[in-house]
Amino acid sequence: MDSIKNRRSIRKYKQDEIPASLLNDLLEEAFRASTMGNMQLYSVVVTRDKQMKEKLAPAHFNQPMVTGAPVVLTFCADFNRFSKWCRARKAEPGYDNPISFLNAATDALLVTQNFCTLAEEHGLGICYLGTTIYNPDQIVEILQLPELVMPVATITVGYPDECPSQVDRLPVQGLLHDEVYHDYSVEDIDRIYAYKESLPENHRFIEENQKETLAQVFTDVRYKKADNEYMSGILKATLKKQGFEK
Amino acid sequence: MDSIKNRRSIRKYKQDEIPASLLNDLLEEAFRASTMGNMQLYSVVVTRDKQMKEKLAPAHFNQPMVTGAPVVLTFCADFNRFSKWCRARKAEPGYDNPISFLNAATDALLVTQNFCTLAEEHGLGICYLGTTIYNPDQIVEILQLPELVMPVATITVGYPDECPSQVDRLPVQGLLHDEVYHDYSVEDIDRIYAYKESLPENHRFIEENQKETLAQVFTDVRYKKADNEYMSGILKATLKKQGFEK
Repeated sequence: MDSIKNRRSIRKYKQDEIPASLLNDLLEEAFRASTMGNMQLYSVVVTRDKQMKEKLAPAHFNQPMVTGAPVVLTFCADFNRFSKWCRARKAEPGYDNPISFLNAATDALLVTQNFCTLAEEHGLGICYLGTTIYNPDQIVEILQLPELVMPVATITVGYPDECPSQVDRLPVQGLLHDEVYHDYSVEDIDRIYAYKESLPENHRFIEENQKETLAQVFTDVRYKKADNEYMSGILKATLKKQGFEK
Repeated sequence: MDSIKNRRSIRKYKQDEIPASLLNDLLEEAFRASTMGNMQLYSVVVTRDKQMKEKLAPAHFNQPMVTGAPVVLTFCADFNRFSKWCRARKAEPGYDNPISFLNAATDALLVTQNFCTLAEEHGLGICYLGTTIYNPDQIVEILQLPELVMPVATITVGYPDECPSQVDRLPVQGLLHDEVYHDYSVEDIDRIYAYKESLPENHRFIEENQKETLAQVFTDVRYKKADNEYMSGILKATLKKQGFEK
C-alpha cells in the first residue's frame, strides 16, 4: 500500500475544511478495527472550534499543528459508556482497574492507527501528538472527560500544505526476533543504528544541541529521565482520578 | 478501503506457509507508522515453530488459533534496544518508568494495527488476541523477553480458511463527541445499544449463558470484576519485573 509506504507526518495544513460527512465515514470505517470482546472501548472527541483548539494547545506544548489544523481528534480509552450500559441492564461492571484501562487504551490505539491509514489514503495529512499522555490531566479538564475515560492519542488532520522528506527507519531485521528475543550485543547496536547515525540531519542535530552523540540529544534534551519521572506521576494521578486504579 | 470496511477476524487458517519475504515486507511497511520521536520503541517476536506455539498456547487460554496459524506475532513495547544504544553512546537512559512503558506500548500498538491492515490488504487473515496482557508473565518467560521489553499484542496470521459473517458495531454517532464529551443519558444508552441488543445471535448468547441481559454475559461470565482485579495484579507485577515501575 503506497499510502502507508510513502507516508510522512504532516504539520502544515491548507485552510480547507474537512467535510463532516467525510470525517464521519473515515471514523466509521476505522471503528472496524479489532476490539476486545466487541466492546468498542473508545470515544473520539472532535475539535473544530478555534477557541477549543487554543485551550488544547498548551496541553500539547503549543505545537502549532493544534491551532493550525482544521480538525483535532482526541482518541480516548472509554469504559464509561460500557459501564453505564451495564448498570442500565441489571449488570454490575468491574472495569475500574489497570487491566481495563490497558484494554480500553489498546482498543483506542488500534482505532487511531486505522483512522490515520484511512485519512492518508483519502489524501489527508495527519500528525500524531505524543503529548496527550504527558498532560492527560489538562486534556481531561478541557474536554470534560468523566470517570473511566482517559485520553490516549491526539491526531491533527487536514489537507497537506507541505511535503517533507520521509524520515529514516531502523533496518527491519534489527526489530525482528525469530522464536525468542535475541538480546542485542554492542555490535548489533552499532549495525542497527549505523544508518541513522550517518545521516547529515542527525549530525546537524548533535551540533545544534551541542552534544557529543545523537543518543545524548535524546537523553539530555528531548526525553529526559527527570521529565519522564515527573510525567509518570501525572499519568498515575490522572489514571487514579479517572477511576482506573481500584 | 474495502479491506478495512469488510474486514472480519479469521480464526481458521489454511496450512499454507506465509513466505518469509512477504512477512518481512509487510512488517517493514508497518514500521512506517508514527513513532514517538522516531525512537521505534517496539520489537516483534515471530513464532513459526510448532513447539513454541504449543508453549505459547496456554498463555492465550488455549485459543486454537495459536497452534492453528502458520505464524504468531508478539508485538512488544521495547525500551531495551534504545537504552542499550544510549549506553553504548555515552548517554544515560531514563526510561524505566510508567510513562515510558505507555510511550513504547503506543508505538507497538500503532505498528500492530498497521501490520493487520497490510496483511489483510494482501489476502491474509488475522486474529487479535487480547490475552497477551492477561498473562504477560508467561509470555515474558517463553519468549525470553529482557528488562524494558513487555508484550502488548499478539496476532495470529495465515491464509483464511473460513469467511465468518461480519460482527456488529455500535452506531458511529454514539462514539463521537463534538468539542467536549457529552456524557450518556439512559436514553442515549438505549439508543446506542438497541441494534446490538436486537440481534438474534445476542439473544442466543443470553440464553446459552442463562442470563437475563446481554450486559450480564459480559459482567458475570466473560469479563468479571474478580478476574480483572487478579489480572491487574499480574500486569502490575510484570511491569515491575520488566523494569517499568521506577
